[in-house]
Amino acid sequence: MIIYGDVVSGNCYKIKLTCHLLGLEYQWRAIDILSGEAQTEEFKALNPNAKTPFVQFEDGFSLAESNAIINYCASNSPLYPNDAKTQAVIQQWQFFEQYSHEPFIAVARFINKYLGLPANRLEEYQAKQPGGHKALSILEQQLTNQLFILGETCTTADISLFAYTHVADEGGFDLDLYPNIQGWIDRIKNLPGYVAIG
Amino acid sequence: MIIYGDVVSGNCYKIKLTCHLLGLEYQWRAIDILSGEAQTEEFKALNPNAKTPFVQFEDGFSLAESNAIINYCASNSPLYPNDAKTQAVIQQWQFFEQYSHEPFIAVARFINKYLGLPANRLEEYQAKQPGGHKALSILEQQLTNQLFILGETCTTADISLFAYTHVADEGGFDLDLYPNIQGWIDRIKNLPGYVAIG
Repeated sequence: MIIYGDVVSGNCYKIKLTCHLLGLEYQWRAIDILSGEAQTEEFKALNPNAKTPFVQFEDGFSLAESNAIINYCASNSPLYPNDAKTQAVIQQWQFFEQYSHEPFIAVARFINKYLGLPANRLEEYQAKQPGGHKALSILEQQLTNQLFILGETCTTADISLFAYTHVADEGGFDLDLYPNIQGWIDRIKNLPGYVAIG
Repeated sequence: MIIYGDVVSGNCYKIKLTCHLLGLEYQWRAIDILSGEAQTEEFKALNPNAKTPFVQFEDGFSLAESNAIINYCASNSPLYPNDAKTQAVIQQWQFFEQYSHEPFIAVARFINKYLGLPANRLEEYQAKQPGGHKALSILEQQLTNQLFILGETCTTADISLFAYTHVADEGGFDLDLYPNIQGWIDRIKNLPGYVAIG
């Protein structure tokens, strides 16, 4: 499989981490988001929404959207068990991630770390803080007395939420406020096959 | 099953439409978002993110997030076929809907139709227009020469994108610009069991 992605993106990192945890081989084609490489006509012809990550599999199948990609890569593995209830709960947390977590935490991180917190984005950056803390509080509560988001084993829901949560400090979110999340981050970093972002 | 929802919400309507298309029985518990009913302690105890829709099934299983709910309701039906590639493409379009479509079109509709386009939200409303048209353009392109988003049959991806697209004019989006989308809206309205929003 070929992954079109930017190594600084948590959404792209989800695919890389899933492949490493499952021992899947891949080629990485670097797309530099900041320099606009995702907006070329060549890339748009492959992928109309022109967003990374985007994956082409060896049989010609291709897929966009990080969470859809990792669920497909993890089909029939313990990361995405073949059970309708389990898959529904995983998707619930992934839609939460894309709607109620990523738009706050990933965007604050991008403005701060990659744009250098310019004055004309400061108000937007500050406006992202309450929503990010709300998302972290919901995750913190879910991790009370259980090892991973669904319970005792890691699933693609954990990968989806780990991607931007473990670097949330780069968006101004103090993870010292969230001890359950800190323990969960350590558990994921200790999984066999774990690979760091970047 | 019990659906906690607000009849004016497209996200809640997705569940209602799925149930009607599949002939599933449900009870509707009205949650008035505008009056803050989703923020009561009683509802938050059931559903920590305190968002509608939220569903409780007869076996005690419960689920949040509209797209996760409809995929679960449609498990093993033609709306969500039991095939990893098909489910992955459905999820791709549903994540597109929640990240690149709903935050523009649904929010513009909410500001215009339910808040009455107040002066202090006018700038935000106007800022939603380009992103909404980008999402509609991608959907319009996908519907070139095919009846539904995945091809010849309706899936939960169509339900997810239909919910706010067919009322996009209420958010200021002129659907006359999108003939393929108009044909697709008509096809969905003619499906056996179709029920209108509201």
